[in-house]
Amino acid sequence: MILYEVAGEDDIRPSPYCWRARWALLHKQIEFEVRPLAYTAIGTIGDGRFRRVPVLEHEGTLLAESFDIALYLDTAFPDRPRLFRGESGTAFARFLDGWTETAIHDPTFGMVVADMWRHLKPVDQGYFRTSREGFLGCGLEAAEEGRELRLPAFQAGLAPLSSLLENQAFLGGEGPDYGDYIVASAFRWLAVVSDFAVVPADGPISGWLKRLETLRG
Amino acid sequence: MILYEVAGEDDIRPSPYCWRARWALLHKQIEFEVRPLAYTAIGTIGDGRFRRVPVLEHEGTLLAESFDIALYLDTAFPDRPRLFRGESGTAFARFLDGWTETAIHDPTFGMVVADMWRHLKPVDQGYFRTSREGFLGCGLEAAEEGRELRLPAFQAGLAPLSSLLENQAFLGGEGPDYGDYIVASAFRWLAVVSDFAVVPADGPISGWLKRLETLRG
Repeated sequence: MILYEVAGEDDIRPSPYCWRARWALLHKQIEFEVRPLAYTAIGTIGDGRFRRVPVLEHEGTLLAESFDIALYLDTAFPDRPRLFRGESGTAFARFLDGWTETAIHDPTFGMVVADMWRHLKPVDQGYFRTSREGFLGCGLEAAEEGRELRLPAFQAGLAPLSSLLENQAFLGGEGPDYGDYIVASAFRWLAVVSDFAVVPADGPISGWLKRLETLRG
Repeated sequence: MILYEVAGEDDIRPSPYCWRARWALLHKQIEFEVRPLAYTAIGTIGDGRFRRVPVLEHEGTLLAESFDIALYLDTAFPDRPRLFRGESGTAFARFLDGWTETAIHDPTFGMVVADMWRHLKPVDQGYFRTSREGFLGCGLEAAEEGRELRLPAFQAGLAPLSSLLENQAFLGGEGPDYGDYIVASAFRWLAVVSDFAVVPADGPISGWLKRLETLRG
């Protein structure tokens, strides 16, 4: 089992989607080897058809898309701890997948994008700046301007997460499941690429992230 | 079984939380009687301790809070169709409860509040205007101003809902469960109190609302 994931300078792992796959493998108690690579080297995986990571290699087959990888792991290893519990658990995870894009990735990307750029390998910095500035419609440094002012609206949008975590230890209940990894991977990405703190240090979200860290590292 | 719910002029039912309770009872296939009342008459229920509806009366006991009412119905009538499926289903419903507040009620309340006021019984209009204008910090009519301009950001926030409903017929899977009723009640409230259309007429959300309407009325 080989996990291809993107790495930055000082061996940091700046991709939330790769964190999802990594935590999913740890949850399933499956041994795996990590092949870190640069963004600009993703095209060297397999026959060159992949544009994004994670990519998982298992018994000679290459799989893409973190959600599909997680579904595959539950099917291929039914006797290991499950990532999805039933139809409701899968639906909840899919909803959290969309919610994480809308409520976490979208509003925070601009807040940390220049910090993230500084953590990338020099070989990736040109590609990253050009592609992301095109997407953002402004410079990476300009995107971070006034981020403190955008923080309250972002944090207000986290209310559904905080209030659930006031009721239970993990989104999955007493223990984490794939929904936890989807959401927590966004916060891990933010913490890895930037010192800008987006969640209060003493709230239910921080407590949950600490519990996950203790469990999965 | 008696459901106390608020009613407006022409017998409309303008409370999303009452829609949740009503749909929960229909889902459980439980016969019930509705006691419609004015907002300003909520204090006449039971011993006068309630400030909000729905209130459910069952075998002489009065219950408040729509989520607690739904949990009670699953406990009291375990042989009827379940509103919550397992720990994951309950967690998903709790998350949807918070998400509906943050992503639907909060951004749309101001868009329809003056329309809603026009649909209330005259006896409620003074109380409603004073309390809601205090909450909003402006006049009801002023709150609706420029609502078309706020629509795109609101609709962008619905992405997690649309994308799940592109994958499956209901949030609960092949059939609806309490999570569906939580979210759909917000859209029913909006449709009942205002002609201002907040969701595109031909998207996955409209299709899902039509399926629910066919099923539950």
